[in-house]
Amino acid sequence: MRWSSYFIPTAKEAPVGTEAVSHQLLLRAGLIHMLTSGVYSYLPLGLRVLNRIQDIIREEMNAIGAQELFLPCLQPLELWQQTGRDKTLAEVMIRFKDKRGKDMCLGPTHEEIITDLVKDFVQSYRQLPLVLYQIQTKFRDEIRPRFGIVRACEFIMKDAYSFDRDKKGLERNYQLMYGAYEKIFKRCNLNAIAVKADSGAMGGDISHEFMVPGAIGEDAVLICNACGQAMGGAQVQSLENGSCPQCAKGTLEKKVAIELGHIFQLGTKYSQAQGANFLDENGQQQTIIMGCYGIGVSRLIAAVVESHNDAAGIIWPKEVAPFDVEILPVQMADSGIMELAENYYQDLSRLGLEALIDDRDVTAGVKFNDADLIGIPLRIVIGKRTFAEGKVEIKNRRTGEVMKLGKDEVSSKIKELIEKV
Amino acid sequence: MRWSSYFIPTAKEAPVGTEAVSHQLLLRAGLIHMLTSGVYSYLPLGLRVLNRIQDIIREEMNAIGAQELFLPCLQPLELWQQTGRDKTLAEVMIRFKDKRGKDMCLGPTHEEIITDLVKDFVQSYRQLPLVLYQIQTKFRDEIRPRFGIVRACEFIMKDAYSFDRDKKGLERNYQLMYGAYEKIFKRCNLNAIAVKADSGAMGGDISHEFMVPGAIGEDAVLICNACGQAMGGAQVQSLENGSCPQCAKGTLEKKVAIELGHIFQLGTKYSQAQGANFLDENGQQQTIIMGCYGIGVSRLIAAVVESHNDAAGIIWPKEVAPFDVEILPVQMADSGIMELAENYYQDLSRLGLEALIDDRDVTAGVKFNDADLIGIPLRIVIGKRTFAEGKVEIKNRRTGEVMKLGKDEVSSKIKELIEKV
Repeated sequence: MRWSSYFIPTAKEAPVGTEAVSHQLLLRAGLIHMLTSGVYSYLPLGLRVLNRIQDIIREEMNAIGAQELFLPCLQPLELWQQTGRDKTLAEVMIRFKDKRGKDMCLGPTHEEIITDLVKDFVQSYRQLPLVLYQIQTKFRDEIRPRFGIVRACEFIMKDAYSFDRDKKGLERNYQLMYGAYEKIFKRCNLNAIAVKADSGAMGGDISHEFMVPGAIGEDAVLICNACGQAMGGAQVQSLENGSCPQCAKGTLEKKVAIELGHIFQLGTKYSQAQGANFLDENGQQQTIIMGCYGIGVSRLIAAVVESHNDAAGIIWPKEVAPFDVEILPVQMADSGIMELAENYYQDLSRLGLEALIDDRDVTAGVKFNDADLIGIPLRIVIGKRTFAEGKVEIKNRRTGEVMKLGKDEVSSKIKELIEKV
Repeated sequence: MRWSSYFIPTAKEAPVGTEAVSHQLLLRAGLIHMLTSGVYSYLPLGLRVLNRIQDIIREEMNAIGAQELFLPCLQPLELWQQTGRDKTLAEVMIRFKDKRGKDMCLGPTHEEIITDLVKDFVQSYRQLPLVLYQIQTKFRDEIRPRFGIVRACEFIMKDAYSFDRDKKGLERNYQLMYGAYEKIFKRCNLNAIAVKADSGAMGGDISHEFMVPGAIGEDAVLICNACGQAMGGAQVQSLENGSCPQCAKGTLEKKVAIELGHIFQLGTKYSQAQGANFLDENGQQQTIIMGCYGIGVSRLIAAVVESHNDAAGIIWPKEVAPFDVEILPVQMADSGIMELAENYYQDLSRLGLEALIDDRDVTAGVKFNDADLIGIPLRIVIGKRTFAEGKVEIKNRRTGEVMKLGKDEVSSKIKELIEKV
């Protein structure tokens, strides 16, 4: 992509009223734009990051046999009345009456909807297990949206649902999801900690949250300074209530954290209320056993930026970076430099790498600052002096390390370096 | 993909209350599911078709330099009040007050939102032209949803917006879009006719609709039986008013049609109302000239099925088919047959083709009927008798043509055939 014709509106200053570093950097680097409080647009660079994260999630979901579908945002309230969640989620639910007088809501989540769908199609134990997921927009009427895309009124989630004939099947799918979540967060270079959690309004027995401790967040974890064991939910609650949970090996420290994922063994809460049954081998009617598994996809972007930045800007981990390489020709007027930049662009494409050329007619200072701000992992700098020596520089955004290379060695070196950043 | 573990809930009978063939077939073939009137889920097979259509659209948009972003569904009503469209679109707009007392709506389209965004970032003629697009869910409070996903309350659109410094730039972008639309519909194997149209509530001077004539639709076109020239909008209106538009070369016939695309030269309607200006070369403030360009993505699926079906089911055009090839081993109990089916599956994957194996333990009749219903372009049938002769059959879903081949010739033959279906 050529920056001169690509829409990356960067800004020097952090917008007023933003407290989280990730919020400031995502706005300044031209990844998101606020439409109104708690509602954000994804600009082209932000959409690229979003797509890469979604691709990682899809790969790991498909790998454990989950099947993708796409459920509606508009939902009839009557389904929520069947489970009583029209009341328990009333505070965050956006409701309206449609022109035909029907009570509708915008999905804050999709348990009722998927249960209604599966109920229409699954009759026999032969059709189980079944694991379905989607990546879809959710809506919550937040009174106090916060930290940009961390707590927003409109946000993107991956939500998966498992349907099993027995508890053993549920436990198996739960373990598979748990493993997939660990892989997803690891690929996004996030230090996510799994803690046992309360099931709250979702219902069910066992649940785990995946938390990323950092500078911001609306949740908290306790981490043992000796053994690293982490606790959340009930333990954090008991700390707040004055009692003192302990770890035998060391002292527990409380840290704020962003909750990125939450998985639940739901059991029969929804299937029973909505009548989702199946016939077993003996022709007996049984209730389907369910689990549900969420990841805050848009929030994940914020968590990555919180975990990977410095004073100059974002430092994207390789797998979620909007581009692999930025090519930075310093002197636009020098046709030799521009030709070389163009050649690298073609070479890298052929190697399957995505490159952004900063071909804007702006000062070197602006280019270098913007490059640090948008945080592409590797940068090829073609400046007058080194070019005259037949050389160019490769800079690693994370380490700051600069490597001077002969100009013909660059493309193959990039291919090698990108594996390691 | 293996059918036995893939969620394709087919049905023998057309559901009651469905009038359009596309609606019946999309439900029967397990591509969509109705949540409530006018609101549909996309099941795994339907999502695959949706994704292939979206990929085609993205390729053609990117090819003309349009850049993808992603705008919110939740929109503050105040932006719509700036252009007066809170009133002109009041009938279809879903509105609510959020918990903070703010008037909000669900986007039926995004002109006001994108204009507000561009206004924040574009100040100079140097930043123009700019063409942005998204593929996003839209909402319309339809009193009478009809024909399944043809007129729905929640649907997917591709909407693009061009921003230019002058009329010449707008005309250039309009032509590029017009060409891209022709390519998109052609790749989907749709006979879309472009007709001059009224701009209606959208505003602006010149606009064209892309219509697909067929058995159903909520629009109409006049087509000359001699020269094929098509007319829409005002001409159809004048026919209804009793006057008789004519073509010099023949008789005009009225046909119902599905409107799949609509492109508009908007001019300054939105930019003026919302104050989206730029400074020209002389430092003079000018109003940005806009165009907007929509495609009904979910509706496009219905139009493809309307245009490509027979009594037995859907006949997917190659580029939008959910899979390229279906492998149909007739006798599941025969390990030789199953092994061969598995080998084809691996071979085709290696050739970059997507295959679906019907490995369900059901009768041959069910398999053949379902294969016709879901309409994958090519089918490899491995039956006992031909297998004993060392042969298998390839069937073309569209022509019904069956080819008997030696079992080692199949994969390479498929690769050749898929180019022509």
